[in-house]
Amino acid sequence: MEVNRYANNPIIGPDDIEPSREDFEVIGVFNCGVTRLGKEVVLLLRVAERPISEGLDSISVAHFDNLSGEFVVKGFSKKDSSIDFSDPRLVVTPFGTYLTSISHLQVARSTDGIRFNVERDGVIFPVEEYETYGIEDPRISFIDGLYYICYVGVCPYGVSTCLVSTEDFVRFDRHGIVFCPENKDVAFFPGQAGGRYYALERPVSPLFGRQDIWIAESGDLICWGNHRRLMSPRVGYWDEVKVGAGAVPVMTEAGWLEVYHGVDKENKYCLGAVLLDAEQPWKVLSRSELPILEPEVDYEREGFIKDVVFSCGLLCEDDKLKIYYGAADTSIAYAQLALEQVLSELKM
Amino acid sequence: MEVNRYANNPIIGPDDIEPSREDFEVIGVFNCGVTRLGKEVVLLLRVAERPISEGLDSISVAHFDNLSGEFVVKGFSKKDSSIDFSDPRLVVTPFGTYLTSISHLQVARSTDGIRFNVERDGVIFPVEEYETYGIEDPRISFIDGLYYICYVGVCPYGVSTCLVSTEDFVRFDRHGIVFCPENKDVAFFPGQAGGRYYALERPVSPLFGRQDIWIAESGDLICWGNHRRLMSPRVGYWDEVKVGAGAVPVMTEAGWLEVYHGVDKENKYCLGAVLLDAEQPWKVLSRSELPILEPEVDYEREGFIKDVVFSCGLLCEDDKLKIYYGAADTSIAYAQLALEQVLSELKM
Repeated sequence: MEVNRYANNPIIGPDDIEPSREDFEVIGVFNCGVTRLGKEVVLLLRVAERPISEGLDSISVAHFDNLSGEFVVKGFSKKDSSIDFSDPRLVVTPFGTYLTSISHLQVARSTDGIRFNVERDGVIFPVEEYETYGIEDPRISFIDGLYYICYVGVCPYGVSTCLVSTEDFVRFDRHGIVFCPENKDVAFFPGQAGGRYYALERPVSPLFGRQDIWIAESGDLICWGNHRRLMSPRVGYWDEVKVGAGAVPVMTEAGWLEVYHGVDKENKYCLGAVLLDAEQPWKVLSRSELPILEPEVDYEREGFIKDVVFSCGLLCEDDKLKIYYGAADTSIAYAQLALEQVLSELKM
Repeated sequence: MEVNRYANNPIIGPDDIEPSREDFEVIGVFNCGVTRLGKEVVLLLRVAERPISEGLDSISVAHFDNLSGEFVVKGFSKKDSSIDFSDPRLVVTPFGTYLTSISHLQVARSTDGIRFNVERDGVIFPVEEYETYGIEDPRISFIDGLYYICYVGVCPYGVSTCLVSTEDFVRFDRHGIVFCPENKDVAFFPGQAGGRYYALERPVSPLFGRQDIWIAESGDLICWGNHRRLMSPRVGYWDEVKVGAGAVPVMTEAGWLEVYHGVDKENKYCLGAVLLDAEQPWKVLSRSELPILEPEVDYEREGFIKDVVFSCGLLCEDDKLKIYYGAADTSIAYAQLALEQVLSELKM
């Protein structure tokens, strides 16, 4: 697969974002939703922040307290042997698990799709109980004249998928939790198939250790049912540990094209492609044998989490897939792939 | 709480059920749904079977293969140190987790609510991929002239909640998975509140180790959204490890009354009561400090899983709660509680 990465990647990095508070630092801007609004390309950035820690031996974490409406900062000593710091994303204590960063969403706009103006005021912060550990990984689907944004809400009760809608990325209407714990990597199909709306989802089964992609259907985009398993990790492949939706699907001449992520035993995140039936999107037509994009260059290989490319959205324009993707959970990069070449990988 | 257990409990036990195959044995009949149909009380029994094992050193498990339409029996040596047999419900191998029994649902009818005729032909067996490890724990809600039955479908991809509906408990219409993995203990409210349908559900968060009761809403009983956390385990209480819906809620003069289950650190399953607002059932009005029914007598204390009382349904009639409940995951018992006394426990 010929991947045309933008030469000056990453296009947005942590230094491009002002922290929301003086005592916080931005450690990552990644996993953005993308859409077109008129002549502009709009990104909805996931911005990850953390409290500036006081020394090397301590770590401070923040969560949002929805009752007081304030952020609360807690400090932990790294010398405390009862606490597990081994996952850089987590602080696991005997009394609860915390995230080392807290994310919010921020709007950025561009006319050329490369140079973005990050809006200081265009921000979605946590508000609800189900968002108290932050909001993450937005995916934007334009449906019936409105932009529907699925994002991940994290709180001590679980990891859910929440929904907001907007006409303009200025005012947002909240629609609560659409998929309850533990369920993320949700992408609404941008349009109906056979008279119904569909969404990709990634529920988790702790009992059976599963993380598969499922598909659900809806009549109103708010309530979802008829959940079906769509596709699973493949033993011996680059996606053998877990899979999840990546970008919002796009309709092509061959059916719905979905760029998804897969994870291997070394925890490497790659992007692959799958083709779903246009009218019956619960039917997998074809799946790429190899990744279409994998971590190869420095900003994808090194960062907060190494060896990660992860997309929440792309534009299918000019016979190209214009992929915006999180690199190493640290920055946002841009690459183009020829649509024809991706589809030819999926020929049956 | 004065609990009036039926003197000849259990009312149905494994010996009352014929195995579905000659090479299977029934090891439990428990966790039944209950409803009234005309002058009859109808139970939908969970019947748990297993292949008769060939010797003490081996264990055989069965699953349903939905592609061939046949049951498949697998044997394991108990001397195989790579396999974990410590949970009597599970066989955990390096290549997958199996259940030691496979359940189906079976109809039983009674005119006095105590002596039941188990129907040999009134059976719901696994059919779909999501049911290949069996179907469990039915809950029956009578809504708009139809009986809606939520039950748990277990398969190697997870533990889901599925829906069927029926007019007569003879013919059943399938509606697929209503709540995707890992989600069970689902009970539909028998009627609307504020113009919407509601259901209790019990999603699982492996990341945060949570098993709370949530509530979702629907316009059509098939698709569900606006998931909200309803109530959680209480530290230091009889329900401090996990909680889940028990019986289908009933409307009382004080609001919706739900008999739920709670689990303590010794894995004891008790039943408690919670009162929810009549029009806004996501609001908890009051919750019983103590269990209303707990394992005390031999058939509740000893069995496949000791110290378990677990209800999927009750009848609220004659100012009484007539509770049908699974005892020790082995048999079905019956008890009456005075409605007035349960409500007085919930006075605020």
